[in-house]
Amino acid sequence: MGRLVQKFGGTSVADVKRIRKAAEIAVKNASEGNEVAIVVSAMGHTTDRLISMAEEISENPDAREMDMLLSTGEQVSIALMSMAIQSLGWQARSFTGQQAGIMTGSSHGTANIREIRPERIESSLQRGEIAVVAGFQGISDCNDITTLGRGGSDTTAVALAGAIAAERCDIYTDVSGVYTCDPRIVPEARRLEAISYEEMLELAATGAQVMASRSIELAMDSHVPIRVRSTFEPDDTGTLITHRLSAPEYTVCGLSLDLNQASINLKCPSIDLDAKRVEGVSSLFTRLQELNISTDMVMLLAHEDEDCQEFAFTVEKRAVPRVLSIIESLGKALGSPHIHCDTDIARISVVGRRLTSKPEVVAKVFDELSTAAIPVLMVTSADLRVSIVVPSAYAKEAVQLIHRRFNLSELAIDFTP
Amino acid sequence: MGRLVQKFGGTSVADVKRIRKAAEIAVKNASEGNEVAIVVSAMGHTTDRLISMAEEISENPDAREMDMLLSTGEQVSIALMSMAIQSLGWQARSFTGQQAGIMTGSSHGTANIREIRPERIESSLQRGEIAVVAGFQGISDCNDITTLGRGGSDTTAVALAGAIAAERCDIYTDVSGVYTCDPRIVPEARRLEAISYEEMLELAATGAQVMASRSIELAMDSHVPIRVRSTFEPDDTGTLITHRLSAPEYTVCGLSLDLNQASINLKCPSIDLDAKRVEGVSSLFTRLQELNISTDMVMLLAHEDEDCQEFAFTVEKRAVPRVLSIIESLGKALGSPHIHCDTDIARISVVGRRLTSKPEVVAKVFDELSTAAIPVLMVTSADLRVSIVVPSAYAKEAVQLIHRRFNLSELAIDFTP
Repeated sequence: MGRLVQKFGGTSVADVKRIRKAAEIAVKNASEGNEVAIVVSAMGHTTDRLISMAEEISENPDAREMDMLLSTGEQVSIALMSMAIQSLGWQARSFTGQQAGIMTGSSHGTANIREIRPERIESSLQRGEIAVVAGFQGISDCNDITTLGRGGSDTTAVALAGAIAAERCDIYTDVSGVYTCDPRIVPEARRLEAISYEEMLELAATGAQVMASRSIELAMDSHVPIRVRSTFEPDDTGTLITHRLSAPEYTVCGLSLDLNQASINLKCPSIDLDAKRVEGVSSLFTRLQELNISTDMVMLLAHEDEDCQEFAFTVEKRAVPRVLSIIESLGKALGSPHIHCDTDIARISVVGRRLTSKPEVVAKVFDELSTAAIPVLMVTSADLRVSIVVPSAYAKEAVQLIHRRFNLSELAIDFTP
Repeated sequence: MGRLVQKFGGTSVADVKRIRKAAEIAVKNASEGNEVAIVVSAMGHTTDRLISMAEEISENPDAREMDMLLSTGEQVSIALMSMAIQSLGWQARSFTGQQAGIMTGSSHGTANIREIRPERIESSLQRGEIAVVAGFQGISDCNDITTLGRGGSDTTAVALAGAIAAERCDIYTDVSGVYTCDPRIVPEARRLEAISYEEMLELAATGAQVMASRSIELAMDSHVPIRVRSTFEPDDTGTLITHRLSAPEYTVCGLSLDLNQASINLKCPSIDLDAKRVEGVSSLFTRLQELNISTDMVMLLAHEDEDCQEFAFTVEKRAVPRVLSIIESLGKALGSPHIHCDTDIARISVVGRRLTSKPEVVAKVFDELSTAAIPVLMVTSADLRVSIVVPSAYAKEAVQLIHRRFNLSELAIDFTP
């Protein structure tokens, strides 16, 4: 007996049949004596349909009105989900973001949850109802409807779990947990029984699409254990994401692959790092931040023999035109560099713990790839991951080789909660 | 320059193109210097689609959840409408029932507006925005979403117009105003320039489908003039519904036809109106009231020669099974009457003012119908209308004859506001 939050994503409520399936899961948990609050997303392609209507009307629809529009998707889901639960003979009550007390900032489309005032949800649970909460939405201080942006329903679920002190947050989705690598790329990839928040964050940040980073961070900060599991195999326990208290006996827990990155390489003719140049680099990164463009694998390397400096980083492919135009506009301040941009790359990340103290990880990766004659274009290393850039044509092969080298398909993570 | 509320019904916002058309009307009115609040319904068949999803999930969906579900329809409309107005270069802001301060009772599906707290709408108008309000919905004291039932968006519009002291409420619809009779039945029917609330109420109560009675009553009580006009011919001034201050120079302003009535006729064997019988009749009407079944044309007639009493009234056809079962259960208390029920009838209502003082109205109707050999089954007369029941096969012919007899196609109503 405990208190659970369960989140059902868009594919888990895509049609009436699936809504009923999800309702059965919630009722089963409630009938086992748990207090259950569920968070639901919009049905399947509802959001896309609403967006296309808005685009038909306006090329650049107002953000507040877009939130007013999109939030109806989850509202339809909570009403139908409550009806489905009731038709199974259990009490249920639906709550919009506003009714559930999800207070957010006022950045429409990308609002952050500031506070949850869960009084109505508490009362609902105390009455023995399954509380059905609309994900992805909240209200601003001035009572305007806001949406939380990508992965928003996960964020709602985790934040709600924290606010009502739930013992766990189940994320029901169309995959059965977190894998050592995407099984579509590495068929022998193994599902992890458990993973730490930090490693999950690294996997999410580098390409694993199980959950959005923001939700994982929130869970970590509010000490909410998450279980990622499949709506279609509800008896399967999935993967638990939590603080890891025992020392891990493994080095690498998983691999991620991102084919959406491009590399930018600036070759600057003079080796003297003058004040002006530093200012130019600083301006570049300030502008990128202003435009909300994330950079990864930032590195600087001096080539003494060629009397030049090389400066490189990766960005999302779609940001490339904006990045190039900023670099051109800064031109001289950056030392009029020679610019090379490669969009035909893959970033592979090897995620584990305390990797800086384990140089063998980088060694094994290099050994494996050079044996297979796969060019390594960039490498960076941090405590939780080593990232490698290879030409995208080699991506799949490289991932499979690294997965095998670290023996991930036989990985048994010793986990003591 | 003034303050207007404009309501656009489901057919007026059925698709993106029509939403844009409605937006143009609102912007035109705003650009002429008016403060404009608009009330919109759900797009076309949205409500039907949502209802069918609910019915797929549950045979008897919970009323609160049904309101949660249905209210999304208007919310989609207000967001799209605001975007459409903005794309025309005018400021707009959408408001759900909750945000617009539409406070209702808690009868889900049939809630009554108790109060409007229009602070946000006032501020929006003062900022020069077009305020776009979701019709048909409000919130109860405990912040649950409610819907107002049939004709709900009209009610929202009229109530809002009263709350913000608008000088007029425009109801944009798919007809161009109120006609002396349904033009599909009487092709020469003429549109009225103006009509009084009372007469409009009689027409609405007896079959004219322009507006729901509740909204007209509300407008009458709060002194809000209504203009019924066409979205598709916005330059047309339609029909003004208001208090009539000058004495009307006409007798009959219009005809309505209702094919959804059935007549119930009870023939009781004894002419003595004993106490028990009266009690039975009283019980019958109490039960009908309890079941929310409206009766019309109630009449009692003693046939001295046959030593019996006849007692008759009309009800909506769909109520007939319930009415008959009540009558049977009361059996003896009603004097074990012979029951005759006729569902094959038409009720024609002749609407005008001070008709009790103008017996010639009944005389003309009788004369016309008897000349044409149309059987008259029932007649009742009140100050604002004379209703006649004829066999439904004669309905159209009877309406056309009466329309011509009162010269309604040439009616010019002298109206001084």
